[in-house]
Amino acid sequence: MSQIRDVAIERLDQGARTADRDRVVVEAPLQLRAHGTPVATIMRTPGHDLELVRGLLHAESIVPGEVRQLDDDAVELDVEPTAFAARGLLSSAACGVCGRVAIADLEHRAREVVADTTIPHAVLAQLPDALRAAQSVFADTGGLHAAGLFTTTGTLLAAREDVGRHNAVDKLVGWALATHLDPAVHVLFLSGRLGYELVQKAIMLGVPIVAAVSAPSSLAIELAERFNLALAGFVRGARCNVYAHGWRVQ
Amino acid sequence: MSQIRDVAIERLDQGARTADRDRVVVEAPLQLRAHGTPVATIMRTPGHDLELVRGLLHAESIVPGEVRQLDDDAVELDVEPTAFAARGLLSSAACGVCGRVAIADLEHRAREVVADTTIPHAVLAQLPDALRAAQSVFADTGGLHAAGLFTTTGTLLAAREDVGRHNAVDKLVGWALATHLDPAVHVLFLSGRLGYELVQKAIMLGVPIVAAVSAPSSLAIELAERFNLALAGFVRGARCNVYAHGWRVQ
Repeated sequence: MSQIRDVAIERLDQGARTADRDRVVVEAPLQLRAHGTPVATIMRTPGHDLELVRGLLHAESIVPGEVRQLDDDAVELDVEPTAFAARGLLSSAACGVCGRVAIADLEHRAREVVADTTIPHAVLAQLPDALRAAQSVFADTGGLHAAGLFTTTGTLLAAREDVGRHNAVDKLVGWALATHLDPAVHVLFLSGRLGYELVQKAIMLGVPIVAAVSAPSSLAIELAERFNLALAGFVRGARCNVYAHGWRVQ
Repeated sequence: MSQIRDVAIERLDQGARTADRDRVVVEAPLQLRAHGTPVATIMRTPGHDLELVRGLLHAESIVPGEVRQLDDDAVELDVEPTAFAARGLLSSAACGVCGRVAIADLEHRAREVVADTTIPHAVLAQLPDALRAAQSVFADTGGLHAAGLFTTTGTLLAAREDVGRHNAVDKLVGWALATHLDPAVHVLFLSGRLGYELVQKAIMLGVPIVAAVSAPSSLAIELAERFNLALAGFVRGARCNVYAHGWRVQ
Protein backbone atom coordinates (compact mmCIF):
# COMPACT_ATOMS: atom_id res chain seq x y z
CA MET A 1 0.00 0.00 0.00
CA SER A 2 1.47 3.28 -1.09
CA GLN A 3 2.71 5.90 1.34
CA ILE A 4 2.59 8.71 -1.19
CA ARG A 5 -0.23 9.74 -3.48
CA ASP A 6 0.12 11.81 -6.60
CA VAL A 7 -2.75 14.30 -6.80
CA ALA A 8 -3.96 17.03 -9.15
CA ILE A 9 -3.61 20.51 -7.70
CA GLU A 10 -3.70 24.13 -8.74
CA ARG A 11 -0.67 26.25 -7.94
CA LEU A 12 -1.47 29.90 -7.30
CA ASP A 13 1.39 32.40 -7.45
CA GLN A 14 0.61 36.11 -7.49
CA GLY A 15 -2.00 36.36 -10.23
CA ALA A 16 -0.97 33.14 -12.00
CA ARG A 17 -2.89 29.87 -11.73
CA THR A 18 -1.34 26.62 -12.97
CA ALA A 19 -2.73 23.09 -13.07
CA ASP A 20 -0.04 20.78 -11.69
CA ARG A 21 0.58 17.60 -9.71
CA ASP A 22 1.73 17.25 -6.10
CA ARG A 23 2.73 14.33 -3.90
CA VAL A 24 0.87 14.08 -0.61
CA VAL A 25 1.33 11.69 2.27
CA VAL A 26 -1.26 8.91 2.51
CA GLU A 27 -3.41 8.79 5.65
CA ALA A 28 -5.52 5.64 5.90
CA PRO A 29 -7.25 3.58 8.61
CA LEU A 30 -5.76 0.39 10.04
CA GLN A 31 -8.21 -1.70 12.01
CA LEU A 32 -7.02 -3.66 15.04
CA ARG A 33 -8.91 -6.89 15.72
CA ALA A 34 -8.53 -8.92 18.89
CA HIS A 35 -9.57 -12.51 18.22
CA GLY A 36 -11.68 -11.21 15.37
CA THR A 37 -13.37 -8.39 17.28
CA PRO A 38 -12.59 -4.85 16.04
CA VAL A 39 -11.14 -2.98 19.03
CA ALA A 40 -9.66 0.16 17.51
CA THR A 41 -8.84 1.89 14.25
CA ILE A 42 -5.60 3.80 13.81
CA MET A 43 -5.28 6.55 11.22
CA ARG A 44 -1.75 6.17 9.92
CA THR A 45 0.55 6.30 6.94
CA PRO A 46 0.73 2.71 5.61
CA GLY A 47 4.00 0.86 6.12
CA HIS A 48 5.60 -0.85 9.12
CA ASP A 49 2.09 -1.64 10.33
CA LEU A 50 3.12 -4.49 12.61
CA GLU A 51 5.80 -2.34 14.24
CA LEU A 52 3.21 0.39 14.67
CA VAL A 53 0.82 -1.95 16.45
CA ARG A 54 3.51 -3.50 18.66
CA GLY A 55 4.83 -0.07 19.62
CA LEU A 56 1.39 1.34 20.32
CA LEU A 57 0.41 -1.60 22.51
CA HIS A 58 3.73 -1.48 24.35
CA ALA A 59 2.97 2.10 25.41
CA GLU A 60 -0.36 0.76 26.73
CA SER A 61 1.21 -2.19 28.54
CA ILE A 62 -0.80 -4.61 26.40
CA VAL A 63 1.03 -7.75 25.30
CA PRO A 64 -0.67 -8.68 22.03
CA GLY A 65 0.74 -12.17 21.46
CA GLU A 66 1.13 -12.85 17.77
CA VAL A 67 0.46 -9.84 15.53
CA ARG A 68 -0.60 -10.71 11.99
CA GLN A 69 -1.40 -8.51 8.99
CA LEU A 70 -4.77 -9.59 7.54
CA ASP A 71 -4.72 -7.14 4.64
CA ASP A 72 -3.80 -3.53 3.89
CA ASP A 73 -6.47 -2.34 6.28
CA ALA A 74 -6.43 -4.72 9.22
CA VAL A 75 -4.21 -6.43 11.77
CA GLU A 76 -5.17 -9.42 13.92
CA LEU A 77 -3.95 -9.69 17.53
CA ASP A 78 -3.81 -12.83 19.64
CA VAL A 79 -5.25 -11.15 22.73
CA GLU A 80 -8.63 -10.93 24.43
CA PRO A 81 -10.68 -7.84 23.49
CA THR A 82 -11.11 -7.18 27.22
CA ALA A 83 -7.43 -6.24 27.42
CA PHE A 84 -8.37 -3.03 25.63
CA ALA A 85 -11.26 -2.27 27.92
CA ALA A 86 -9.03 -2.92 30.93
CA ARG A 87 -6.68 -0.17 29.79
CA GLY A 88 -9.58 2.26 29.67
CA LEU A 89 -9.57 3.66 26.19
CA LEU A 90 -6.80 2.36 24.04
CA SER A 91 -7.52 5.11 21.59
CA SER A 92 -6.76 7.61 24.26
CA ALA A 93 -3.06 7.15 24.34
CA ALA A 94 -2.30 7.62 20.69
CA CYS A 95 -2.98 10.56 18.48
CA GLY A 96 -4.85 9.57 15.37
CA VAL A 97 -6.62 6.54 16.77
CA CYS A 98 -10.31 6.51 16.10
CA GLY A 99 -13.21 4.18 16.64
CA ARG A 100 -14.56 4.04 13.13
CA VAL A 101 -13.79 4.84 9.55
CA ALA A 102 -13.85 8.50 8.83
CA ILE A 103 -15.86 9.22 5.71
CA ALA A 104 -18.61 6.67 6.15
CA ASP A 105 -19.21 7.83 9.69
CA LEU A 106 -19.18 11.46 8.71
CA GLU A 107 -21.74 10.91 5.95
CA HIS A 108 -24.22 9.87 8.60
CA ARG A 109 -23.68 13.01 10.60
CA ALA A 110 -22.72 15.85 8.30
CA ARG A 111 -23.82 17.43 5.04
CA GLU A 112 -22.02 18.99 2.13
CA VAL A 113 -21.45 22.70 2.37
CA VAL A 114 -23.94 24.12 -0.13
CA ALA A 115 -22.96 27.81 0.08
CA ASP A 116 -20.98 29.10 -2.93
CA THR A 117 -18.59 31.08 -0.73
CA THR A 118 -15.30 32.09 -2.36
CA ILE A 119 -12.20 33.99 -1.23
CA PRO A 120 -9.80 36.07 -3.33
CA HIS A 121 -6.31 34.58 -3.36
CA ALA A 122 -4.92 38.00 -2.37
CA VAL A 123 -6.95 37.81 0.86
CA LEU A 124 -5.99 34.19 1.56
CA ALA A 125 -2.32 35.15 1.23
CA GLN A 126 -2.69 37.60 4.15
CA LEU A 127 -4.12 35.10 6.62
CA PRO A 128 -0.85 33.54 7.87
CA ASP A 129 0.48 36.92 9.00
CA ALA A 130 -2.86 37.88 10.50
CA LEU A 131 -3.01 34.66 12.51
CA ARG A 132 0.59 35.01 13.66
CA ALA A 133 -0.09 38.57 14.81
CA ALA A 134 -3.03 37.33 16.89
CA GLN A 135 -0.94 34.68 18.61
CA SER A 136 2.00 36.95 19.44
CA VAL A 137 1.54 36.49 23.18
CA PHE A 138 2.59 32.86 22.98
CA ALA A 139 4.88 33.07 20.02
CA ASP A 140 7.96 32.86 22.21
CA THR A 141 7.16 29.38 23.51
CA GLY A 142 7.24 27.91 20.03
CA GLY A 143 4.93 25.20 21.28
CA LEU A 144 1.46 26.29 20.32
CA HIS A 145 -0.77 25.49 17.39
CA ALA A 146 -3.19 28.19 16.28
CA ALA A 147 -6.54 28.22 14.48
CA GLY A 148 -8.33 31.33 13.25
CA LEU A 149 -11.76 32.02 11.80
CA PHE A 150 -11.75 34.76 9.17
CA THR A 151 -14.24 36.53 6.93
CA THR A 152 -13.66 36.21 3.18
CA THR A 153 -12.36 39.78 3.24
CA GLY A 154 -9.62 38.81 5.71
CA THR A 155 -11.02 40.07 9.00
CA LEU A 156 -10.06 37.85 11.93
CA LEU A 157 -13.14 36.95 13.98
CA ALA A 158 -11.39 34.81 16.60
CA ALA A 159 -8.16 32.90 17.12
CA ARG A 160 -7.46 30.10 19.57
CA GLU A 161 -4.25 28.33 20.56
CA ASP A 162 -3.35 25.06 22.19
CA VAL A 163 -0.54 22.59 22.58
CA GLY A 164 -2.76 20.21 20.58
CA ARG A 165 -3.79 21.30 17.11
CA HIS A 166 -7.15 19.55 17.44
CA ASN A 167 -7.80 21.41 20.66
CA ALA A 168 -7.12 24.78 19.01
CA VAL A 169 -9.79 23.97 16.41
CA ASP A 170 -12.20 22.64 19.04
CA LYS A 171 -11.85 25.88 21.03
CA LEU A 172 -12.55 27.91 17.91
CA VAL A 173 -15.57 25.77 17.02
CA GLY A 174 -16.89 26.12 20.56
CA TRP A 175 -16.55 29.88 20.24
CA ALA A 176 -18.28 29.90 16.85
CA LEU A 177 -21.21 27.82 18.11
CA ALA A 178 -21.77 30.28 20.95
CA THR A 179 -21.81 33.29 18.61
CA HIS A 180 -24.45 31.83 16.28
CA LEU A 181 -22.53 33.23 13.30
CA ASP A 182 -23.05 31.65 9.87
CA PRO A 183 -20.02 29.36 9.38
CA ALA A 184 -20.87 28.88 5.68
CA VAL A 185 -19.51 32.31 4.73
CA HIS A 186 -16.22 32.05 6.65
CA VAL A 187 -12.71 30.66 6.37
CA LEU A 188 -10.78 28.42 8.77
CA PHE A 189 -7.02 28.97 8.79
CA LEU A 190 -4.56 26.72 10.64
CA SER A 191 -0.93 27.16 11.61
CA GLY A 192 0.15 23.60 10.88
CA ARG A 193 -0.65 20.58 8.77
CA LEU A 194 -4.03 19.42 7.54
CA GLY A 195 -4.98 15.94 8.71
CA TYR A 196 -8.40 14.40 8.27
CA GLU A 197 -9.55 15.11 11.81
CA LEU A 198 -9.14 18.84 11.35
CA VAL A 199 -11.07 18.77 8.09
CA GLN A 200 -13.74 16.66 9.79
CA LYS A 201 -14.15 19.33 12.45
CA ALA A 202 -14.47 22.00 9.74
CA ILE A 203 -17.14 19.93 8.00
CA MET A 204 -19.06 19.44 11.24
CA LEU A 205 -18.99 23.21 11.77
CA GLY A 206 -19.94 23.87 8.15
CA VAL A 207 -17.00 26.02 7.04
CA PRO A 208 -16.53 25.96 3.23
CA ILE A 209 -12.85 27.01 3.02
CA VAL A 210 -9.98 25.47 5.01
CA ALA A 211 -6.40 26.59 4.54
CA ALA A 212 -3.10 26.07 6.30
CA VAL A 213 0.57 26.92 6.27
CA SER A 214 1.58 23.30 5.73
CA ALA A 215 0.71 20.11 3.87
CA PRO A 216 -2.60 18.20 3.73
CA SER A 217 -2.93 14.41 3.94
CA SER A 218 -4.61 12.26 1.29
CA LEU A 219 -7.65 11.66 3.50
CA ALA A 220 -8.03 15.37 4.27
CA ILE A 221 -8.22 15.99 0.52
CA GLU A 222 -10.77 13.20 0.03
CA LEU A 223 -12.98 14.61 2.77
CA ALA A 224 -12.77 18.13 1.36
CA GLU A 225 -13.65 16.86 -2.14
CA ARG A 226 -16.59 14.88 -0.83
CA PHE A 227 -18.07 17.64 1.32
CA ASN A 228 -17.56 20.53 -1.09
CA LEU A 229 -14.82 22.35 0.82
CA ALA A 230 -11.88 24.22 -0.66
CA LEU A 231 -8.61 22.91 0.79
CA ALA A 232 -5.49 25.05 0.42
CA GLY A 233 -2.04 24.13 1.73
CA PHE A 234 1.40 25.71 1.85
CA VAL A 235 -0.14 29.18 2.03
CA ARG A 236 3.11 31.12 2.10
CA GLY A 237 3.70 34.61 0.75
CA ALA A 238 2.04 35.03 -2.64
CA ARG A 239 1.88 31.27 -3.22
CA CYS A 240 -0.40 28.44 -2.25
CA ASN A 241 -1.50 25.01 -3.46
CA VAL A 242 -5.20 24.25 -3.79
CA TYR A 243 -6.07 20.56 -3.35
CA ALA A 244 -9.85 20.56 -3.55
CA HIS A 245 -12.62 22.78 -4.93
CA GLY A 246 -10.26 25.40 -6.30
CA TRP A 247 -13.20 27.43 -7.62
CA ARG A 248 -13.58 28.75 -4.08
CA VAL A 249 -10.18 30.50 -4.31
CA GLN A 250 -10.33 33.24 -6.93
CA MET B 1 -4.66 28.65 35.39
CA SER B 2 -1.60 29.74 33.50
CA GLN B 3 -1.00 28.93 29.86
CA ILE B 4 2.72 29.57 30.04
CA ARG B 5 5.25 28.26 32.53
CA ASP B 6 8.62 29.78 33.23
CA VAL B 7 11.20 27.01 33.63
CA ALA B 8 14.91 26.71 34.37
CA ILE B 9 16.92 25.49 31.39
CA GLU B 10 20.48 25.22 30.18
CA ARG B 11 21.32 26.83 26.86
CA LEU B 12 24.08 25.07 24.95
CA ASP B 13 25.77 26.96 22.13
CA GLN B 14 28.95 25.60 20.61
CA GLY B 15 31.06 24.85 23.69
CA ALA B 16 29.26 27.31 25.95
CA ARG B 17 26.69 26.28 28.58
CA THR B 18 24.49 28.89 30.25
CA ALA B 19 21.87 28.53 32.95
CA ASP B 20 18.81 30.48 31.81
CA ARG B 21 15.02 30.60 31.91
CA ASP B 22 12.57 29.70 29.14
CA ARG B 23 8.82 29.96 28.71
CA VAL B 24 7.08 26.72 27.77
CA VAL B 25 3.46 26.08 26.92
CA VAL B 26 1.43 24.41 29.67
CA GLU B 27 -0.09 21.00 28.91
CA ALA B 28 -2.50 19.81 31.60
CA PRO B 29 -5.43 17.39 31.91
CA LEU B 30 -9.06 18.52 31.85
CA GLN B 31 -11.51 15.89 33.05
CA LEU B 32 -14.96 15.67 31.50
CA ARG B 33 -17.72 14.44 33.83
CA ALA B 34 -21.19 13.48 32.67
CA HIS B 35 -23.62 13.73 35.59
CA GLY B 36 -20.64 13.26 37.89
CA THR B 37 -19.14 10.26 36.11
CA PRO B 38 -15.67 10.82 34.58
CA VAL B 39 -16.00 10.01 30.86
CA ALA B 40 -12.78 11.38 29.35
CA THR B 41 -9.70 13.43 30.06
CA ILE B 42 -8.38 15.91 27.54
CA MET B 43 -4.74 16.99 27.56
CA ARG B 44 -4.86 20.64 26.65
CA THR B 45 -3.44 24.10 27.22
CA PRO B 46 -5.67 25.71 29.88
CA GLY B 47 -7.95 28.51 28.73
CA HIS B 48 -11.26 28.59 26.84
CA ASP B 49 -12.06 25.24 28.42
CA LEU B 50 -15.81 25.45 27.91
CA GLU B 51 -15.34 26.34 24.24
CA LEU B 52 -12.95 23.41 23.93
CA VAL B 53 -15.50 21.00 25.35
CA ARG B 54 -18.38 22.35 23.27
CA GLY B 55 -16.28 22.21 20.11
CA LEU B 56 -15.03 18.71 20.81
CA LEU B 57 -18.49 17.36 21.52
CA HIS B 58 -19.92 19.09 18.44
CA ALA B 59 -17.45 17.14 16.28
CA GLU B 60 -18.76 13.98 17.97
CA SER B 61 -22.43 14.94 17.51
CA ILE B 62 -22.93 14.94 21.28
CA VAL B 63 -25.18 17.69 22.65
CA PRO B 64 -23.89 18.20 26.17
CA GLY B 65 -26.64 20.40 27.64
CA GLU B 66 -25.22 22.84 30.15
CA VAL B 67 -21.41 22.84 30.34
CA ARG B 68 -20.02 24.04 33.66
CA GLN B 69 -16.44 24.52 34.85
CA LEU B 70 -16.01 22.77 38.22
CA ASP B 71 -12.41 23.83 38.75
CA ASP B 72 -9.18 24.22 36.79
CA ASP B 73 -9.12 20.49 36.10
CA ALA B 74 -12.71 19.47 35.48
CA VAL B 75 -15.85 20.30 33.51
CA GLU B 76 -19.35 18.98 34.26
CA LEU B 77 -21.75 18.13 31.43
CA ASP B 78 -25.51 17.77 31.67
CA VAL B 79 -25.63 14.59 29.59
CA GLU B 80 -25.89 10.87 30.26
CA PRO B 81 -22.53 9.04 30.34
CA THR B 82 -23.99 6.58 27.85
CA ALA B 83 -23.88 9.30 25.19
CA PHE B 84 -20.12 8.78 25.14
CA ALA B 85 -20.33 5.03 24.86
CA ALA B 86 -22.88 5.40 22.05
CA ARG B 87 -20.34 7.35 20.00
CA GLY B 88 -17.84 4.54 20.39
CA LEU B 89 -14.75 6.07 21.86
CA LEU B 90 -15.06 9.75 22.49
CA SER B 91 -11.34 9.96 23.02
CA SER B 92 -10.84 8.66 19.54
CA ALA B 93 -11.82 11.77 17.72
CA ALA B 94 -9.50 14.22 19.36
CA CYS B 95 -5.78 14.16 19.56
CA GLY B 96 -4.61 14.53 23.12
CA VAL B 97 -7.61 12.96 24.78
CA CYS B 98 -6.73 10.29 27.27
CA GLY B 99 -8.52 8.14 29.76
CA ARG B 100 -6.46 8.93 32.84
CA VAL B 101 -3.95 11.29 34.27
CA ALA B 102 -0.54 10.84 32.81
CA ILE B 103 2.07 10.67 35.54
CA ALA B 104 0.14 8.71 38.15
CA ASP B 105 -0.78 6.10 35.58
CA LEU B 106 2.73 5.89 34.25
CA GLU B 107 4.18 5.36 37.72
CA HIS B 108 2.22 2.13 37.96
CA ARG B 109 3.61 0.86 34.69
CA ALA B 110 7.08 2.26 34.13
CA ARG B 111 10.33 2.76 35.98
CA GLU B 112 12.95 5.45 36.03
CA VAL B 113 15.77 5.04 33.60
CA VAL B 114 18.69 4.00 35.82
CA ALA B 115 21.46 3.92 33.18
CA ASP B 116 23.87 6.87 33.34
CA THR B 117 23.94 7.26 29.55
CA THR B 118 25.19 10.61 28.25
CA ILE B 119 25.66 12.16 24.81
CA PRO B 120 28.19 14.82 23.72
CA HIS B 121 26.45 17.99 22.60
CA ALA B 122 28.51 17.91 19.39
CA VAL B 123 26.86 14.56 18.54
CA LEU B 124 23.38 15.73 19.48
CA ALA B 125 23.80 18.71 17.15
CA GLN B 126 24.26 16.36 14.18
CA LEU B 127 21.05 14.39 14.70
CA PRO B 128 18.60 16.74 12.93
CA ASP B 129 20.56 16.52 9.67
CA ALA B 130 21.01 12.78 10.04
CA LEU B 131 17.28 12.26 10.54
CA ARG B 132 16.38 14.54 7.63
CA ALA B 133 18.78 12.64 5.37
CA ALA B 134 17.06 9.38 6.31
CA GLN B 135 13.61 10.73 5.45
CA SER B 136 14.59 12.23 2.11
CA VAL B 137 12.23 9.98 0.17
CA PHE B 138 9.21 11.64 1.68
CA ALA B 139 10.65 15.08 2.21
CA ASP B 140 8.82 16.47 -0.79
CA THR B 141 5.37 15.84 0.65
CA GLY B 142 6.08 18.08 3.63
CA GLY B 143 3.50 16.09 5.54
CA LEU B 144 5.46 13.53 7.49
CA HIS B 145 6.72 13.42 11.03
CA ALA B 146 9.91 11.45 11.66
CA ALA B 147 11.43 9.68 14.64
CA GLY B 148 14.92 8.21 14.78
CA LEU B 149 16.79 6.01 17.23
CA PHE B 150 20.48 6.84 17.46
CA THR B 151 23.55 5.63 19.33
CA THR B 152 25.26 8.16 21.58
CA THR B 153 27.97 8.45 18.93
CA GLY B 154 25.42 9.60 16.35
CA THR B 155 24.82 6.43 14.33
CA LEU B 156 21.26 6.13 13.10
CA LEU B 157 19.84 2.69 13.95
CA ALA B 158 16.38 3.19 12.45
CA ALA B 159 14.05 5.96 11.35
CA ARG B 160 10.30 5.82 10.88
CA GLU B 161 7.84 8.29 9.41
CA ASP B 162 4.12 8.85 9.59
CA VAL B 163 1.44 11.46 9.11
CA GLY B 164 0.93 11.20 12.89
CA ARG B 165 3.89 11.96 15.12
CA HIS B 166 2.76 9.39 17.69
CA ASN B 167 2.61 6.77 14.98
CA ALA B 168 6.19 7.50 13.89
CA VAL B 169 7.36 6.86 17.47
CA ASP B 170 5.17 3.76 17.81
CA LYS B 171 6.68 2.30 14.63
CA LEU B 172 10.17 2.97 15.93
CA VAL B 173 9.35 1.43 19.31
CA GLY B 174 7.88 -1.62 17.58
CA TRP B 175 11.09 -1.98 15.60
CA ALA B 176 13.24 -1.59 18.72
CA LEU B 177 11.26 -4.22 20.63
CA ALA B 178 11.80 -6.71 17.82
CA THR B 179 15.56 -6.15 17.72
CA HIS B 180 16.04 -6.75 21.46
CA LEU B 181 18.55 -3.89 21.57
CA ASP B 182 19.22 -2.15 24.90
CA PRO B 183 17.18 1.07 24.75
CA ALA B 184 18.93 2.45 27.86
CA VAL B 185 22.07 3.36 25.90
CA HIS B 186 20.32 5.09 22.99
CA VAL B 187 18.82 8.40 21.96
CA LEU B 188 15.36 9.19 20.54
CA PHE B 189 15.27 12.14 18.17
CA LEU B 190 12.03 13.64 16.81
CA SER B 191 11.32 16.02 13.94
CA GLY B 192 8.63 18.03 15.73
CA ARG B 193 7.46 19.12 19.13
CA LEU B 194 7.67 17.25 22.42
CA GLY B 195 4.31 16.59 24.04
CA TYR B 196 3.78 14.32 27.03
CA GLU B 197 2.58 11.35 25.00
CA LEU B 198 5.84 11.15 23.08
CA VAL B 199 7.87 11.33 26.28
CA GLN B 200 5.59 8.68 27.77
CA LYS B 201 6.39 6.37 24.88
CA ALA B 202 10.11 6.99 25.38
CA ILE B 203 9.76 6.15 29.08
CA MET B 204 7.85 2.95 28.30
CA LEU B 205 10.64 1.94 25.93
CA GLY B 206 13.34 2.93 28.43
CA VAL B 207 15.27 5.50 26.37
CA PRO B 208 17.24 7.93 28.58
CA ILE B 209 17.68 10.84 26.14
CA VAL B 210 14.91 12.45 24.11
CA ALA B 211 15.57 15.41 21.82
CA ALA B 212 13.67 17.29 19.14
CA VAL B 213 13.83 20.13 16.68
CA SER B 214 11.04 22.01 18.40
CA ALA B 215 9.56 22.94 21.78
CA PRO B 216 8.56 20.71 24.71
CA SER B 217 5.39 21.12 26.77
CA SER B 218 5.32 21.59 30.54
CA LEU B 219 4.07 18.06 31.12
CA ALA B 220 6.74 16.57 28.87
CA ILE B 221 9.34 18.27 31.06
CA GLU B 222 7.70 17.01 34.26
CA LEU B 223 7.67 13.44 32.98
CA ALA B 224 11.31 13.64 31.90
CA GLU B 225 12.34 15.04 35.29
CA ARG B 226 10.43 12.35 37.14
CA PHE B 227 11.71 9.40 35.10
CA ASN B 228 15.35 10.51 34.82
CA LEU B 229 15.37 11.36 31.11
CA ALA B 230 17.29 14.18 29.47
CA LEU B 231 14.94 16.36 27.43
CA ALA B 232 16.44 18.67 24.80
CA GLY B 233 14.45 20.98 22.54
CA PHE B 234 15.17 23.43 19.74
CA VAL B 235 18.14 21.34 18.61
CA ARG B 236 19.21 23.55 15.72
CA GLY B 237 22.73 24.03 14.43
CA ALA B 238 25.18 24.39 17.30
CA ARG B 239 22.44 25.35 19.75
CA CYS B 240 19.94 23.56 21.89
CA ASN B 241 17.95 24.02 25.11
CA VAL B 242 18.05 21.31 27.76
CA TYR B 243 14.92 21.14 29.92
CA ALA B 244 15.59 18.14 32.15
CA HIS B 245 18.58 16.15 33.39
CA GLY B 246 21.13 18.27 31.58
CA TRP B 247 23.96 16.12 32.96
CA ARG B 248 23.16 13.65 30.20
CA VAL B 249 24.21 16.19 27.53
CA GLN B 250 27.92 16.89 27.82
